[in-house]
Amino acid sequence: MFGIVTDDVTLTPMLDSTALLTDHYELTMVRAAMRSGAAFRPSVFELFPRRLPTGRRYGVVAGVGRALESVEAFTFDEPTIDWLLAHDVVDQPLADWLADYRFTGSVWGYPEGEVYFPGSPLMIVEGSFAEAVILETVLLSIYNYDSAVASAASRMTAMAGERPCIEMGSRRTNEIAAVAAARAAFVAGFAATSNLEAGRRYGVPTRGTAAHSFTLLHASEAEAFEAQLRALGEATTLLVDTYDIEAAVRTGVELTNGRLGAVRLDSGDLAELAGSVRELLDSLGATKTRILVTSDLDEWQIAALRGAPVDGFGVGTSLVTGSGAPTCGFVYKLVARADSDEPDAPLVPVAKKSVNKTSIGGRKFALRRLDARGKAEAEVIGIGAPPSGDTNDRPLLVELIRDGDVVGVEALSAAQERHARSRAELPLSALKMSKGEAAIPTLLLDEHGASTDNPYARSEA
Amino acid sequence: MFGIVTDDVTLTPMLDSTALLTDHYELTMVRAAMRSGAAFRPSVFELFPRRLPTGRRYGVVAGVGRALESVEAFTFDEPTIDWLLAHDVVDQPLADWLADYRFTGSVWGYPEGEVYFPGSPLMIVEGSFAEAVILETVLLSIYNYDSAVASAASRMTAMAGERPCIEMGSRRTNEIAAVAAARAAFVAGFAATSNLEAGRRYGVPTRGTAAHSFTLLHASEAEAFEAQLRALGEATTLLVDTYDIEAAVRTGVELTNGRLGAVRLDSGDLAELAGSVRELLDSLGATKTRILVTSDLDEWQIAALRGAPVDGFGVGTSLVTGSGAPTCGFVYKLVARADSDEPDAPLVPVAKKSVNKTSIGGRKFALRRLDARGKAEAEVIGIGAPPSGDTNDRPLLVELIRDGDVVGVEALSAAQERHARSRAELPLSALKMSKGEAAIPTLLLDEHGASTDNPYARSEA
Repeated sequence: MFGIVTDDVTLTPMLDSTALLTDHYELTMVRAAMRSGAAFRPSVFELFPRRLPTGRRYGVVAGVGRALESVEAFTFDEPTIDWLLAHDVVDQPLADWLADYRFTGSVWGYPEGEVYFPGSPLMIVEGSFAEAVILETVLLSIYNYDSAVASAASRMTAMAGERPCIEMGSRRTNEIAAVAAARAAFVAGFAATSNLEAGRRYGVPTRGTAAHSFTLLHASEAEAFEAQLRALGEATTLLVDTYDIEAAVRTGVELTNGRLGAVRLDSGDLAELAGSVRELLDSLGATKTRILVTSDLDEWQIAALRGAPVDGFGVGTSLVTGSGAPTCGFVYKLVARADSDEPDAPLVPVAKKSVNKTSIGGRKFALRRLDARGKAEAEVIGIGAPPSGDTNDRPLLVELIRDGDVVGVEALSAAQERHARSRAELPLSALKMSKGEAAIPTLLLDEHGASTDNPYARSEA
Repeated sequence: MFGIVTDDVTLTPMLDSTALLTDHYELTMVRAAMRSGAAFRPSVFELFPRRLPTGRRYGVVAGVGRALESVEAFTFDEPTIDWLLAHDVVDQPLADWLADYRFTGSVWGYPEGEVYFPGSPLMIVEGSFAEAVILETVLLSIYNYDSAVASAASRMTAMAGERPCIEMGSRRTNEIAAVAAARAAFVAGFAATSNLEAGRRYGVPTRGTAAHSFTLLHASEAEAFEAQLRALGEATTLLVDTYDIEAAVRTGVELTNGRLGAVRLDSGDLAELAGSVRELLDSLGATKTRILVTSDLDEWQIAALRGAPVDGFGVGTSLVTGSGAPTCGFVYKLVARADSDEPDAPLVPVAKKSVNKTSIGGRKFALRRLDARGKAEAEVIGIGAPPSGDTNDRPLLVELIRDGDVVGVEALSAAQERHARSRAELPLSALKMSKGEAAIPTLLLDEHGASTDNPYARSEA
């Protein structure tokens, strides 16, 4: 299996090759462009959101590391090329080119964990049209799903504050998407996951003890709890709502002489139950036994449990489905290309004119404008040289791939730390759970550095 | 790579092993149950929905073939076991057992493409507690996602009628989930997909021609169209909304002397545009040129385009995200187990009592009750022997795995045909796009075959 290692970080894609995780039309476009002679014109593609999901105040970039893996693994072996030829997806000249395919261009992008706003140029891919266009589908898939999960996860960890969130939604999404979801949730501040593959592959801490079936398997709850305590120790978490919660809590405390690690509540009115279970635990002397809650939690439920004696949250369905926004709607658009395939041919901005789907031509810069206290004021994007002189503008684009070499690999913990810093910069309104506008406006600068009308401007409320 | 072949159908899972696509607690439960001596008690698990997504009138089972693959590939190699030991997920006795793990039990289930209702016992897994419980996560992941896509897809193909639907949502979901989505959409009647891996892996027909970037790459639209026609032939589909639609249609017709295969509209008011483009095409003599539409379609948009001269629909985001229901909420519950691990120990029904999360103990049968005209009247489920004598009851459970051997593999086209038949049996109300109750009621029979109260009964409107 393929893998690259940089500073103890290994990139190991799920599949040996990501080349067919691709829309049919990416290859037919190259096939046709080879006929016209335009296939190898220097080009710039941009991956960006036209807007945030309805009501959201910011988004979170995730999947960057996985995207770099997928570019490294984007190669066509002989059986793959034979299949493409046999099904007339490619012709022989394209097949010959694909056999040697490796991305040789350069990629800049927002680093993983960074927040984003409408129009943020999340990834800028520079290369020949052919080598850059065929990465479209897999890059969008990764960014759209991982960022949807991270964007939801960030709202949950913001509401949970210091109390840890554990990702446990594997069963409610595609079995391999689940691994990516666990990773994305970690970027946005989740402490752990139930998903073992995410533990092995990405080093996300894994957690889990028992489900209701384990209690039902045994003749009595006490028998089940005893077995669990023997196997996993007194620090374990007992699931106490299979039959009668009060009886289960008493049993757990008795069996551990009050040293039980935690109890888990997975049904009912969690705020009320947490309160009465806390009272019961305290009355039994189990003052250090924590209370974990699960059961269809989302950011609003977590916010509603702020006043309850809850020590941790397990989140499943709403997390892995993006809490109402299961995809980000990122698009990947050609924004500039040369008129010839000479390497130094000048790049010409291009943009389509489809209704409600405009894009802005040209290679972008992107800055987060901060006020004197370091709070974010605006997302500043534009073409050409970024404005100079204002030291509070934080550049957002980092180099991810240089002339085909992946240079942007980092540890997942670095992305988690970046997200915490980046979210802390946002105005307080960003963390409101009510529907609203983007927390900061997106400003588009023209060639002269002047602010100009743009499709990402906020509508006035 | 692992694979089993039955009647020309190959099962090839995405990963060499699916064993870690599993929640941590599945393994700790087995670890603890090995301590209590209960781990190998004969058990029955059931995978089922408590309800349909809000407002939906039926659901569609998909992922069955992928689930069978995942059971076959559920094996633990040495590095995996070493990782589990090193991270204290398993102890040595469990590690030894996992090293030899292969599922040896039996599985019955609804065949792929069948429709389902609240409480339908979609999969019944019989084996020891240990060998059956650890399949929970991966089975739920596959069923929950694939069925969410198929359930949305079925509503779209129902609205499209004879006009083909093409799946093109890969970019809006996880890159590997996308392959499963293309497969599930095909089961529910989609004609083709843009996803190349779904083409290679599952034989789903693939389609695609060009995106806006292809037009923008060239100096003029005519130059782009010429290149595409040379490479892909006159039967190709030209994307005509990059600049001016009327001019693009005229160019496409001129370049092909009226023999152009199709045009694609990807923006704007599709009904109005399709009408004017049809008139223009006909006026230019291109009466056989088809009109395909894409751009944020869903079942309601497709229904709204019934009267428009549209010849095919490309569906992306809403399909791969389940059109508002990105997961099915299936659960996997222990419904019966023996009191000892003797192979012939009698099975005892079990059920938890958690608020709003009741399950019904015991191994189920399931029948679709049909009226004299062959129309579905009810979903009949119960414990014990199914009612006999009524020849219009169609049994729903088929054997999928017998004593560890996969016996339920079938061609994907068989699932597609089954879905068409099964949907055609439903009352007409099933195909209403407005929110409503399940199209037929779920009846729960007691041991004596009498109808009894059940949590799946429809609320009266």
